[in-house]
Amino acid sequence: MFTLLKTEGRARRGRFETVHGSVETPVFMNVGTAAAIKGGVSTLDLKNLKCQIELSNTYHLHIRPGDEIVRELGGIHRFFNWDRPVLTDSGGFQVFSLAQLRDISEQGVVFQSHVDGRRIFMGPRESMRIQSNLASTIAMAFDECIENPSPYDYVKRSVERTLRWLHICKDEMERLNALHDTINPRQMLFGINQGGTYDDLRLWHMEEIAKLDLDGYAIGGLAVGEEAEVMYHIIDVVEPAMPRDRPRYLMGVGTPCNILEAVSRGVDFFDCVMPSRNARHGHLFTWQGIINLQNNKYERDGRPIDESCDCEVCRNYSRAYIRHLLRAKEMLGMRLAVMHNLYFYNTLTERIRAALDEGCFAQFKQHYMDILGRRI
Amino acid sequence: MFTLLKTEGRARRGRFETVHGSVETPVFMNVGTAAAIKGGVSTLDLKNLKCQIELSNTYHLHIRPGDEIVRELGGIHRFFNWDRPVLTDSGGFQVFSLAQLRDISEQGVVFQSHVDGRRIFMGPRESMRIQSNLASTIAMAFDECIENPSPYDYVKRSVERTLRWLHICKDEMERLNALHDTINPRQMLFGINQGGTYDDLRLWHMEEIAKLDLDGYAIGGLAVGEEAEVMYHIIDVVEPAMPRDRPRYLMGVGTPCNILEAVSRGVDFFDCVMPSRNARHGHLFTWQGIINLQNNKYERDGRPIDESCDCEVCRNYSRAYIRHLLRAKEMLGMRLAVMHNLYFYNTLTERIRAALDEGCFAQFKQHYMDILGRRI
Repeated sequence: MFTLLKTEGRARRGRFETVHGSVETPVFMNVGTAAAIKGGVSTLDLKNLKCQIELSNTYHLHIRPGDEIVRELGGIHRFFNWDRPVLTDSGGFQVFSLAQLRDISEQGVVFQSHVDGRRIFMGPRESMRIQSNLASTIAMAFDECIENPSPYDYVKRSVERTLRWLHICKDEMERLNALHDTINPRQMLFGINQGGTYDDLRLWHMEEIAKLDLDGYAIGGLAVGEEAEVMYHIIDVVEPAMPRDRPRYLMGVGTPCNILEAVSRGVDFFDCVMPSRNARHGHLFTWQGIINLQNNKYERDGRPIDESCDCEVCRNYSRAYIRHLLRAKEMLGMRLAVMHNLYFYNTLTERIRAALDEGCFAQFKQHYMDILGRRI
Repeated sequence: MFTLLKTEGRARRGRFETVHGSVETPVFMNVGTAAAIKGGVSTLDLKNLKCQIELSNTYHLHIRPGDEIVRELGGIHRFFNWDRPVLTDSGGFQVFSLAQLRDISEQGVVFQSHVDGRRIFMGPRESMRIQSNLASTIAMAFDECIENPSPYDYVKRSVERTLRWLHICKDEMERLNALHDTINPRQMLFGINQGGTYDDLRLWHMEEIAKLDLDGYAIGGLAVGEEAEVMYHIIDVVEPAMPRDRPRYLMGVGTPCNILEAVSRGVDFFDCVMPSRNARHGHLFTWQGIINLQNNKYERDGRPIDESCDCEVCRNYSRAYIRHLLRAKEMLGMRLAVMHNLYFYNTLTERIRAALDEGCFAQFKQHYMDILGRRI
């Protein structure tokens, strides 16, 4: 259940209650695709990093270790020892981006596993069954992710099919949740808005999915290469049609500035691989801007990544040491860098929430928009 | 200063006091070659893993990031944030095994860096200077590591030179420790016994280095491919000539059974990459024997690696989960496996010490010799 605690303009401060505890929003979900955060970060670490909700992936866990195995072991929470909420992405994005695509039909998609090449079929029912086996807190609807730009007619047919799939997802989840041996009978469903970069299709689709009274609504198919302004525009187009009393999730976004912009447009949930991916290349977020630890100037720099940061990494290790680890390709370098960046993102949303609580989000945003994106 | 607390047969229970705190022996040193434990394990983790003393490498740190940089940052303890003892290997072994060897002379060795190919010279003075810059607790003497077997005449000339180098190392350390800006003016020196597999050369060399009144004595040049029985025999040959009131260190050893055998022959210090290297391949030590987590039978095994182990990994994660991580090549899999194996080794020496304290080491050894080496 979502409670809107406060608003400032279109920005929202909320609380989302689930069977695995509540989530304070706006929130950044930490991505652990295959039930593990890249960079050797465990669920024990996530608690120290202020992570409220973890995101795993239906496609990856279906392929390996297999959702039946996760189910047999008691569901994903027991599998990776995490008692807070987990959102599972539906696999739609991965089926269309990672797998070798074979055939898409009204029923779903036949594709080849990127691991061992075997043929797999996934449609809305299969995605729901897998997510029920995983027993995540929140399941995402199975959708078609199309490239931007795609031809109008194709996008129109695609969103119509994605809408039909959503009806199937909802029915199938109700059926699965009612089974006597379902691990999480209170699993929730978020629908995903699609429609490429066409305002009318986006809006029509959002209005249609809003009618289904789902637990939350996501905007998908963005942050796939289009300009940030296009993304902000799409949010502006669809946001008025999103139910006020349900959380809104902008999938795969983004930079700190993207998050500030999207919060100001009424978005509550985010996820992105950027903090961990950038960390592995030495790109670290600080409250003064972005530093590249590969830079020679950090070779003898005994200061922490960010002197104003109180994460475990900044309290214990220097730029010079982490730079050395990254250059020596020591796993520990990636781990420390990823931990700092995730802590930064989780602290960013924590500070956004505090600013909203205090009614000064506009100033907070204005102040940090200039700072957080610059390379120092 | 080394205090012999108790003996049982030739096995010794001791305490080694250093400027960075004391070490209870027998002890297993945890190897962090480039100032980082492989598998994404930090110095903060090492404390949770019951590590008493960390081992880093002169050669690797000289090549990268450079010992002058470590010195500028306050020495290795500040560099990687560790306040307990650090032993630095002298670089001798690495120069002779890793680098492309160019030329060995009375002065030392000219070789090519394995990182960028540049020509580097290292002899006893250079090794001592680098180790003084690193400011480790214990420096190892610079020696020539020869292959087993090598011709008698070559080994004889080599150990004679290694003895001359040791005199230089001792003088150079005294000089460096006396400089006003030396970071650790109480750095200690361990000599290294060599002599291949020739009893007379081994014994002669040990008798000669024992005369130098060093802080400790190592047996080097073993565990490089010869049979375990050969190694035990060499310990039997040289041990009577090792000063009783100084710690004895068997370099690069070994399996749990090797350690039990060597402790029973009077060895106090050990180091080995085996726990971390094996972990990365899914080979995990337990108190019931060695398991290979890659094995299919662990696919649905919700039990910890070792039900009798109280390490953080066994308290929180299952065989099935760690197996999944290793198969998915998630760094976290390596991290968890390495942490368990290091904890096992540190607990093994802890239990050896307890058995010595209680006067039942012989029974302890007999019981576990049959168990710890078997694959289950």
